[in-house]
Amino acid sequence: MTNTRAEAFAPATMANIGVGFDILGLAISGVGDTVIAEWGDGEGAQLTRIEGDGGKLPFDAAQNVTTIAANAVLRQVGYRGGVRLSLLKGLPLASGLGSSAASAVAGAVAVNALLGEPLTREALLPACLEGEAAVSGYHADNVAPSLFGGITLTTGVALEDIQRLPVPLGVHFAFVTPNVEVRTAEARAVLPAQIPLKQMIHQTGMVARLVDAIYRNDLQALALAMEGDVVVEPARAHLMPYLYEARALAKANGALALVISGAGPTLCAVCEGAQVAQTVLDALQAFYGQKGLQSSGRVAQIAERGATVKLF
Amino acid sequence: MTNTRAEAFAPATMANIGVGFDILGLAISGVGDTVIAEWGDGEGAQLTRIEGDGGKLPFDAAQNVTTIAANAVLRQVGYRGGVRLSLLKGLPLASGLGSSAASAVAGAVAVNALLGEPLTREALLPACLEGEAAVSGYHADNVAPSLFGGITLTTGVALEDIQRLPVPLGVHFAFVTPNVEVRTAEARAVLPAQIPLKQMIHQTGMVARLVDAIYRNDLQALALAMEGDVVVEPARAHLMPYLYEARALAKANGALALVISGAGPTLCAVCEGAQVAQTVLDALQAFYGQKGLQSSGRVAQIAERGATVKLF
Repeated sequence: MTNTRAEAFAPATMANIGVGFDILGLAISGVGDTVIAEWGDGEGAQLTRIEGDGGKLPFDAAQNVTTIAANAVLRQVGYRGGVRLSLLKGLPLASGLGSSAASAVAGAVAVNALLGEPLTREALLPACLEGEAAVSGYHADNVAPSLFGGITLTTGVALEDIQRLPVPLGVHFAFVTPNVEVRTAEARAVLPAQIPLKQMIHQTGMVARLVDAIYRNDLQALALAMEGDVVVEPARAHLMPYLYEARALAKANGALALVISGAGPTLCAVCEGAQVAQTVLDALQAFYGQKGLQSSGRVAQIAERGATVKLF
Repeated sequence: MTNTRAEAFAPATMANIGVGFDILGLAISGVGDTVIAEWGDGEGAQLTRIEGDGGKLPFDAAQNVTTIAANAVLRQVGYRGGVRLSLLKGLPLASGLGSSAASAVAGAVAVNALLGEPLTREALLPACLEGEAAVSGYHADNVAPSLFGGITLTTGVALEDIQRLPVPLGVHFAFVTPNVEVRTAEARAVLPAQIPLKQMIHQTGMVARLVDAIYRNDLQALALAMEGDVVVEPARAHLMPYLYEARALAKANGALALVISGAGPTLCAVCEGAQVAQTVLDALQAFYGQKGLQSSGRVAQIAERGATVKLF
């Protein structure tokens, strides 16, 4: 028990990466949630502080994804003491940036770090999934990149179902989040239950091209493949204000592609180079402003590393 | 007009590679069709000899895929003389080994070679597709690997829709073709018109894993992904005699996976090493024999090169 405090930062993530619905995700550099874990009284992990959530997140340990994940870790290692947690939200809720996954991952990683890392990073996966499940379902498409970093292919929730892909060089993103609410449940409800076989063939082809482009570091092919979704985006487009106008504007300003980040409403413009991404971001935010929509935005890259730890 | 004769050998191909329905294909080493082109009288390409087809293929230049492809090349380059063709079938018809594609590719490549290669290999694609279309539809999934070699990802029929993937090392196949007829039209008719979204997610995930496994040269992952098809194989399984028994037997003899080659009835066992493949092939052929089915079989690898040419 040498540490008095452990701080974990878990990156925001973009699920789907365009066409890879429910199977692909990537970690976003420079934005994420922080959880600070300190020794506490009693038993189990309790949240004593939440910042940056606008008062929306519950403190109840049985309901907050951070404490659910943290307590799953404590249970897993058989630790019976108390831990106090502070959650500092660094990204907006329900915005398509993996907010709940980042909170769960930061909680699990912080507690594990405070305890002196009894569990490997891989062994934290079930605890993180348990936290994520409380809000977004038992899926690894956001949790895996936040925990492990880079781009992950997730065909299930077991470790052997998670494969890291290489991180292409030179990709910069402009993420812009308009101030509208898109609930994940609604974004799921609008999806078709059945799709034509032809569309399946198209989707498999585009996903194959996306993985191929990632390995070949071919940004043009990457962008084309990301935008190749004919199933999910058309079903959700009406939930994203001005999606097609935003895409056209982003491209007019040099973006290679624009896709919905996760279930939205955040949009992600894919650019070659940070300067293009900044130009695109400025244009998109100005455009939303003209339409009377407030927005937040940032330029980012793919984060090679997943959650990081600082010990005190 | 320096050549008096050009001989082209176009490899057999396996479309789908398991889970990659309509988008993936690979060239098979050592088996294929040969077309011999010689100067002739009159105008256009005419077949004067067909061997190895059991008398089933038409000599009519407007109906045979070889002459359709060859004449498309002559038209493309504006050559108005006559060419005599001999077609030597090296693979069984309608067996799931890309028979029509190999005949079309060999015809186009042979005529182009006789003329002194006025067209690049890439420029022959439309002529080959025109031949293939006469029998199997306007698809590139068999034509592309036969023409270009290796493993190809085909998301359309234009050159920019065709991407070569790396060829993993150490993969050996046992191909066994039972003496039953599976017509491609029937194999298509049994497919579902609509599929559940969940199955699409599964198929895209498995295709992504297949491309990833190809790039990482991970044969275990390759085999798992190839067999991950939950849409096409279940719909077609009843057309392939003893499919599941054959799979179990192949694995009991060391195969990593077994899939339907193209639209069948050829089955392809995926093995690590030539000796395992031979053992698996022997076991499968003995098994079919016990069931009263004649079969042909061969051990093969992925052919790095597409159609090859000899000049005389």
